Amino acid sequence: MDVTRIDQIAIAVEDLDEALAFYERAFGLTPAYRERVDSDGVEEAMLDVGGVYIQLLQATRDDSPIARYLAKHGPGLHHVGFGVRSVSDALDHLRDQEVALIDQEPRPGGGGHTVAFVHPKGTGGVLVELVENQGEDGDHEQGSEHDR
Amino acid sequence: MDVTRIDQIAIAVEDLDEALAFYERAFGLTPAYRERVDSDGVEEAMLDVGGVYIQLLQATRDDSPIARYLAKHGPGLHHVGFGVRSVSDALDHLRDQEVALIDQEPRPGGGGHTVAFVHPKGTGGVLVELVENQGEDGDHEQGSEHDR
Repeated sequence: MDVTRIDQIAIAVEDLDEALAFYERAFGLTPAYRERVDSDGVEEAMLDVGGVYIQLLQATRDDSPIARYLAKHGPGLHHVGFGVRSVSDALDHLRDQEVALIDQEPRPGGGGHTVAFVHPKGTGGVLVELVENQGEDGDHEQGSEHDR
Repeated sequence: MDVTRIDQIAIAVEDLDEALAFYERAFGLTPAYRERVDSDGVEEAMLDVGGVYIQLLQATRDDSPIARYLAKHGPGLHHVGFGVRSVSDALDHLRDQEVALIDQEPRPGGGGHTVAFVHPKGTGGVLVELVENQGEDGDHEQGSEHDR
């Protein structure tokens, strides 16, 4: 399994509107799109920086992973997204390598992507999201149905 | 000041050799280069992922910023590097915007780059490294002499 690209750098923020205003004012970055993902309890905005997204994540409920992260750590770098040809194949490979997983199967993520999270205890403290490349000949194309 | 690209995602690791073996085994990533930067008290390895570096950072002395980070937080995501045309101009802009800086002036970083760090208290908890783009018509080309 090869990681072919960085898909995103995800940052937990207290207030998405304030964070967007800051990123525009300080770094000249504006959102490509903004989306509420109720299954993850987040509202997210994606800033496209030369083909890599900075993803700003605000919690939409107190029991979401982002809310718990903010309560424990405060705002800051949350996870990194690695682009792979097939999330399903990548999970099989990581299981073979005995790397701890959060998601055992691919699932739908933001932006219509197929994703799965790898546990930071398996990666040297880094929460990794596997994001399936679009428009490639993978086993799980965007929009395909999964078991959950 | 516009951020034009993501230069790097930097990860603090306890043991660089072990981390490199893991990134190859789990993700199929191998280092483009490896370097000891004594001024920062780190040994670093750069994994090129589609033009963006994953930078693995190991401390080389107990009083280095990476050693202090590891002692406080353990291994994990440490900072993000933003590519800019001119670090000097970017610092001027951020000062105008009253964003807290760590480096007041551009300085030499790893790989012969001109860099400066922005304080996480100014950016919503994210340690940001500004990295000057190479081969552009910036005020501070790679290899130019700075005041420190």
